[in-house]
Amino acid sequence: MTTPDVVFDFARAERMGLDEAVLCAGKSSGQIATILRQAQHRGVGLLLTRLSADVHATLLPEFATQIDYCGISRTGFFGPMRPVTSTGMVAIVAAGTSDAPVAREAERTLRHAGVEATVIIDVGVAGLWRLMNRVEDIRRYPVVIAVAGMDAALASVLAGLVAGLVIGVPTSVGYGAVEAGRTALNAMLASCAQGLTVCNIDNGFGAANAALRALAIASNKKDCTPWETQPSSHANS
Amino acid sequence: MTTPDVVFDFARAERMGLDEAVLCAGKSSGQIATILRQAQHRGVGLLLTRLSADVHATLLPEFATQIDYCGISRTGFFGPMRPVTSTGMVAIVAAGTSDAPVAREAERTLRHAGVEATVIIDVGVAGLWRLMNRVEDIRRYPVVIAVAGMDAALASVLAGLVAGLVIGVPTSVGYGAVEAGRTALNAMLASCAQGLTVCNIDNGFGAANAALRALAIASNKKDCTPWETQPSSHANS
Amino acid sequence: MTTPDVVFDFARAERMGLDEAVLCAGKSSGQIATILRQAQHRGVGLLLTRLSADVHATLLPEFATQIDYCGISRTGFFGPMRPVTSTGMVAIVAAGTSDAPVAREAERTLRHAGVEATVIIDVGVAGLWRLMNRVEDIRRYPVVIAVAGMDAALASVLAGLVAGLVIGVPTSVGYGAVEAGRTALNAMLASCAQGLTVCNIDNGFGAANAALRALAIASNKKDCTPWETQPSSHANS
Amino acid sequence: MTTPDVVFDFARAERMGLDEAVLCAGKSSGQIATILRQAQHRGVGLLLTRLSADVHATLLPEFATQIDYCGISRTGFFGPMRPVTSTGMVAIVAAGTSDAPVAREAERTLRHAGVEATVIIDVGVAGLWRLMNRVEDIRRYPVVIAVAGMDAALASVLAGLVAGLVIGVPTSVGYGAVEAGRTALNAMLASCAQGLTVCNIDNGFGAANAALRALAIASNKKDCTPWETQPSSHANS
Amino acid sequence: MTTPDVVFDFARAERMGLDEAVLCAGKSSGQIATILRQAQHRGVGLLLTRLSADVHATLLPEFATQIDYCGISRTGFFGPMRPVTSTGMVAIVAAGTSDAPVAREAERTLRHAGVEATVIIDVGVAGLWRLMNRVEDIRRYPVVIAVAGMDAALASVLAGLVAGLVIGVPTSVGYGAVEAGRTALNAMLASCAQGLTVCNIDNGFGAANAALRALAIASNKKDCTPWETQPSSHANS
Amino acid sequence: MTTPDVVFDFARAERMGLDEAVLCAGKSSGQIATILRQAQHRGVGLLLTRLSADVHATLLPEFATQIDYCGISRTGFFGPMRPVTSTGMVAIVAAGTSDAPVAREAERTLRHAGVEATVIIDVGVAGLWRLMNRVEDIRRYPVVIAVAGMDAALASVLAGLVAGLVIGVPTSVGYGAVEAGRTALNAMLASCAQGLTVCNIDNGFGAANAALRALAIASNKKDCTPWETQPSSHANS
Amino acid sequence: MTTPDVVFDFARAERMGLDEAVLCAGKSSGQIATILRQAQHRGVGLLLTRLSADVHATLLPEFATQIDYCGISRTGFFGPMRPVTSTGMVAIVAAGTSDAPVAREAERTLRHAGVEATVIIDVGVAGLWRLMNRVEDIRRYPVVIAVAGMDAALASVLAGLVAGLVIGVPTSVGYGAVEAGRTALNAMLASCAQGLTVCNIDNGFGAANAALRALAIASNKKDCTPWETQPSSHANS
Amino acid sequence: MTTPDVVFDFARAERMGLDEAVLCAGKSSGQIATILRQAQHRGVGLLLTRLSADVHATLLPEFATQIDYCGISRTGFFGPMRPVTSTGMVAIVAAGTSDAPVAREAERTLRHAGVEATVIIDVGVAGLWRLMNRVEDIRRYPVVIAVAGMDAALASVLAGLVAGLVIGVPTSVGYGAVEAGRTALNAMLASCAQGLTVCNIDNGFGAANAALRALAIASNKKDCTPWETQPSSHANS
Repeated sequence: MTTPDVVFDFARAERMGLDEAVLCAGKSSGQIATILRQAQHRGVGLLLTRLSADVHATLLPEFATQIDYCGISRTGFFGPMRPVTSTGMVAIVAAGTSDAPVAREAERTLRHAGVEATVIIDVGVAGLWRLMNRVEDIRRYPVVIAVAGMDAALASVLAGLVAGLVIGVPTSVGYGAVEAGRTALNAMLASCAQGLTVCNIDNGFGAANAALRALAIASNKKDCTPWETQPSSHANS
Repeated sequence: MTTPDVVFDFARAERMGLDEAVLCAGKSSGQIATILRQAQHRGVGLLLTRLSADVHATLLPEFATQIDYCGISRTGFFGPMRPVTSTGMVAIVAAGTSDAPVAREAERTLRHAGVEATVIIDVGVAGLWRLMNRVEDIRRYPVVIAVAGMDAALASVLAGLVAGLVIGVPTSVGYGAVEAGRTALNAMLASCAQGLTVCNIDNGFGAANAALRALAIASNKKDCTPWETQPSSHANS
Repeated sequence: MTTPDVVFDFARAERMGLDEAVLCAGKSSGQIATILRQAQHRGVGLLLTRLSADVHATLLPEFATQIDYCGISRTGFFGPMRPVTSTGMVAIVAAGTSDAPVAREAERTLRHAGVEATVIIDVGVAGLWRLMNRVEDIRRYPVVIAVAGMDAALASVLAGLVAGLVIGVPTSVGYGAVEAGRTALNAMLASCAQGLTVCNIDNGFGAANAALRALAIASNKKDCTPWETQPSSHANS
Repeated sequence: MTTPDVVFDFARAERMGLDEAVLCAGKSSGQIATILRQAQHRGVGLLLTRLSADVHATLLPEFATQIDYCGISRTGFFGPMRPVTSTGMVAIVAAGTSDAPVAREAERTLRHAGVEATVIIDVGVAGLWRLMNRVEDIRRYPVVIAVAGMDAALASVLAGLVAGLVIGVPTSVGYGAVEAGRTALNAMLASCAQGLTVCNIDNGFGAANAALRALAIASNKKDCTPWETQPSSHANS
Repeated sequence: MTTPDVVFDFARAERMGLDEAVLCAGKSSGQIATILRQAQHRGVGLLLTRLSADVHATLLPEFATQIDYCGISRTGFFGPMRPVTSTGMVAIVAAGTSDAPVAREAERTLRHAGVEATVIIDVGVAGLWRLMNRVEDIRRYPVVIAVAGMDAALASVLAGLVAGLVIGVPTSVGYGAVEAGRTALNAMLASCAQGLTVCNIDNGFGAANAALRALAIASNKKDCTPWETQPSSHANS
Repeated sequence: MTTPDVVFDFARAERMGLDEAVLCAGKSSGQIATILRQAQHRGVGLLLTRLSADVHATLLPEFATQIDYCGISRTGFFGPMRPVTSTGMVAIVAAGTSDAPVAREAERTLRHAGVEATVIIDVGVAGLWRLMNRVEDIRRYPVVIAVAGMDAALASVLAGLVAGLVIGVPTSVGYGAVEAGRTALNAMLASCAQGLTVCNIDNGFGAANAALRALAIASNKKDCTPWETQPSSHANS
Repeated sequence: MTTPDVVFDFARAERMGLDEAVLCAGKSSGQIATILRQAQHRGVGLLLTRLSADVHATLLPEFATQIDYCGISRTGFFGPMRPVTSTGMVAIVAAGTSDAPVAREAERTLRHAGVEATVIIDVGVAGLWRLMNRVEDIRRYPVVIAVAGMDAALASVLAGLVAGLVIGVPTSVGYGAVEAGRTALNAMLASCAQGLTVCNIDNGFGAANAALRALAIASNKKDCTPWETQPSSHANS
Repeated sequence: MTTPDVVFDFARAERMGLDEAVLCAGKSSGQIATILRQAQHRGVGLLLTRLSADVHATLLPEFATQIDYCGISRTGFFGPMRPVTSTGMVAIVAAGTSDAPVAREAERTLRHAGVEATVIIDVGVAGLWRLMNRVEDIRRYPVVIAVAGMDAALASVLAGLVAGLVIGVPTSVGYGAVEAGRTALNAMLASCAQGLTVCNIDNGFGAANAALRALAIASNKKDCTPWETQPSSHANS
């Protein structure tokens, strides 16, 4: 009855009509190759997250070349992918260049699900006029993902200026009192702007999924999830 | 140029078309009465949060009797209030009786904004069949607020069973390793179920506001927020 | 050789040409009265901090009526006091009404030293336009004390808009992820705005003293502090 | 009277009738070889834990080839080993592939003591039906070791579904609010399911030993432990 | 569909053949009376935990006099109770008098379930000979609950001397570096004695339930828990 | 075999030739009276620590009047007491008036053991000349107990100026970053002055006992502690 | 509308009349080269901070040779730089050699802005006479930056001896209770010397900027900062 | 006036009659060589601590071969050294092999000062009889240094069995709830055995210095420390 260590649940993906995501951190290239081979055999697409350049480089050429890889966000697209079906619904706003990897992970996760997001980087509040120049644009998006580290003040300011759903993603950028992102996380949770929701530190993938859940409201999908079609978890976490 | 300590910004409320909320914790009954008097004079309604029974009792009778007060959630409705304009969109699911105050704060905040939520209490995962009996109902709601303390496992389980937006609210119920809600908060943030978003500990008010932001997506309100109409902050925090 | 527990060092005050401050927290009204009596006898003035209304009420009438007491900031002026010798140099900017006690402690400490500060309350960034309406005024002050709790975003935004010295004072207002002011403290320390300096949580007294130290630069006082004239510590802490 | 740094207490093992375990973390391959040589000389078997592949590779060939090594769990069996004397008593249930090393450490520790455990991996609660499909099986085991990181919700759900002894082992898998396993640890300790006991983070070895202690109850061994036969500690920790 | 705040699930108790426990902390005497009345009506017994003397005193006389109340452990027995069916299986060993409330909570929880435990108090390791005088007795018990605060060294020493299952319960006794029991908790988790399992701080109730789960191994109850008979959670937590 | 909750081990005191100490925090006046009565019957003296004025007031008059009580240190001497046998060996140096209770607890603990210490209060480093005026005196003592809260800089400065044994006692005085004494504790542990040893926060009793242990070196007592004469622990902790 | 990841805002620098700083930590040499090229093209100078020797070595020779690089402080000057316009205004005082990198970062940041500071290293309070020999000199500076790790006692002692503005910079030097600089940070915040302000751990750059802000008071620059001339943030943080 | 980064204060050593110690962690081999050369020139001996094998290997052969290096404790003796003048006064007792580096650092520090200590390793309380076999020996020493990680129970047990001065040194050995030695540190501080003093985590050097301070009591050295002869700090920390 003892099971193997890698049990990829493609049934989940099939039942849900969603492509599956694979968290690559902590997996060997051998384990990842096993999953890719199974996906290939079934003809399903996969989103790979936290795929380091090193591990990507050690994958067999047959797989490495088939992956649309982004080194900044450490994500890969493998196999068939959805076409873009939604644009203009999600803005991803990041405070600085150092936050770009997290912002890009969110962007790529959304793209894999068919949602094209707008990304605006380097509008931290230390130079408030940068943000002010963009704020009219940002307010047009019903969902805004705010990516910021250090004091995370960008998320509070944005949530005070935008009426839509604001999803904060603290980042671990910095040192000392930054406490590896814990300060940004707490600052977002303690925000004086009401209704700001928060994801785990550096979790662009999670923020994108929260955005997808919210977009489903507008799509009136609320009744279509029978027992067999739960949203998938991050595979083999 | 020095300002008084209490500067209630009714202009905000008027510009936004939203009623204003007053965080009563840390305010004397005198300060609260000042705000109520101003609101009365302008004919605007107010949501009062964290209004303890003691402070409520010390308000002048003229105000105390005009407040629709709920002792469990420590909230009050004062003055004119919106009619219910939305039902069946938000479910509030709480793990145990001890989580009821937070769940009720969320419910009352939504009600004040015209949204009637469904509240389901005492479905913690220690007795999983209680939740399983209700899960088909819960999945019909596009927005689910999951209220849980201690291990907060309810939020993860719900986010794995529900396709809509799930907003987790950790509560401070318990002792020892509970760490006044910090454990529940971290467990929600670290959830293996993807796309779960989180609010501050015991912050039913914040979760309700996040739900209101999300519901605006469906209402197609995304373009209607010019500079003058930012979502209000918690007044005089 | 064993000393008594209360050793009030008036010599310090005399040598420095500064009035002395007494931290009343943790002292009985009897101990405070002893110090007041000694000050009276010498004809020197005192600033009393953290003097709760309860302790103030239990002081002998002879002392209680001689104290210019402020219940919000829990400070008292006793005996002779300096005239105002400086105005327009320090602005104290606070995010919300709950931050007023700390802002007022700073204001009163400065006033006791002859510096009249401007106080601006309820300009938190959740409603950014409130701050924007005041920012031109605030920038005229060479020293700005920024008082904010929760996410403390006000301090970062201010330090990004003001060229003078900005001294942040985090406050302990709030609950949960606020962590009794630790989050605001860390956020200020981790601020993306460069050159923001920080004091202990709720320490309006300390911020005022830092401002006094900075103002001495302009007054060209730098050479006038021989061995006998160190800045005093908080007496009998 | 000064002692050497490595004092391996074989007398303990002999008195107790149990094989000895060696925690290899923090020991050089030279120190480990010394212990192996002594064990070989006495003809006793050893369980090696936290033996990294690197250190394993640097052991002399004479030892490396005699070790039954498992790279996933970083454990080794050296020398004579007990036959399997118990099956069907312990289930090890892990939430995801990343938890496999800890689950396998528990499995191997039990095997070395003659207990064959059943291992079930990848049944985390994010996809609850995976667990539900296995729950009837799991309930047949009097002792269940629940291995889970992140939110550790699996342990709470299991302890609510299983009547036997449930031993939780939090793992350090993840990032950010996961806090290197501290969140999973606290969540298990704070579990709403009563009677869940917990071991240190990543401590599959400890959980297996707790299971062995519990199995002794059924074996009616309670009277057979005179002074000379204490359970051994982890040698040379 | 909205539920009331207090939903007492007697069905659980009936299905499981176990009496139900009510965590009274955070419940008003009115809420407790409601549950007692329902239990009385059904003729089932209840274990009340964390029932403070104050709340006990405010219960209606009809209930207060029917409760077998223990002020030290803050527990109450209400209604019919099981006879003692097991003795000599569980020893509860506590380091000092201050740990007695937790030890007694464990004892009373076991007694309510029909298990008579032996309680040994004031054998902390600071005076090691006190423990040594009792250790031969203690080793006869297949399950030992070790209750200790401060450095919790008693639990490590016991787990090194006893071959049975040792369940550690850290207590919150002390100040400073004690960190409200967190130090004792961590010390038990980090114990150098292998196989020590741990419960939450001050959780005598949980330790007793873990002991009951372990005793079931000896009773060969492992197959008798169909879907309807899960172990109950702490009611209405 | 079950023991009572209060087991006062007078045998310990008798064997060691030392009077016994009773930690009164967490004990009812009834429990304390029981111990006093037993001590009276045996004719032994007791040191009572952490005896609050409230509990002291509720002791029976027969006991209250026999206790030499000190409200500042919350200590009491009961029954026969040693004469002073040592002077000039221990200096207790405290930074401020707020640290006096801890300093006095150390002084009284030493006095009860026959050691007369010198106490010097209000020499914190914020006014360094106060300390400098006393440093020649302080250096004459072979053992110095340094009592300081907040930044605890006094302990580092003293350990850099004094050649004898320096025992630091951090105090919990202050707020915010003081973290209830944790900052002072860590600062002492991290001191740049080598060989500074540290006790728990506010633990004047422990520091005095460490001093007594050190003084025994000079008294050449090192051989006189057979098995029966261990130093006692704090009774019934 | 999506922006590139590196958006260097030279407009800021030009508007403010200040050279720009680039935080190199977390940037590839390619990204840094892009910024340098742009700066070169515009003819503006840059301060590079946290530029590791490794990254410096991988920059193209054309850039590496043009950078005035300091390996201790990991800073570089690139392009045109201000002449020294101020001396004798800022002293940087560090406790030990290990604090030199932070002290030198402050020195170099000031130098880049035209301020020549005096640096005094190895005057920690463990050998108080070293500091005492220098204190008359130090007191002549209107601004003192105190750099210290471990117990950070130097900052408290200095703030008690110096009347000017004292800016504390805790460093992360040490191990254990040092907690990577958190202890020094908290000790400075909790200092018994009033008016000590604090920057983030190891943030010599921030302290220098605070000093620059303070020096502006003396220069009477307070009115010259219209909207377009905010102090810059750390570029592309 | 600006000083160099390395200012070795030999005057201190000369004035005190003690050899000087150099903390090598964080110093380059170049900086260390500079100090060695100066010491050589003056003919004074040095104790080098935290000198890693790597840095030791990169020192010039002229220095490396002159250093009596111990790889376990990472200490070196350089130049002339005191003869042994004291034996039988200090016992160093360590719980396990992993604690040996810290125990050996204490031993070598004492040896450099002329004190020969006895070292006893691998007597952790998990196998209590190992300690019991040695306890009669240990009690003969007036000063006992107890080195232990994990639960640190050894220190409490020792302090309960030994009448002399017990100096606890927590070690950072272990993982998870061990929290890098913080748990052992807190457990020692919270020990139920009275009068146990504590040093920083892994600080064998500090414990040895505390022992030296205590031994001075017996040597009646108390009067011989005029202003010029303070105990040295760790050079150039």
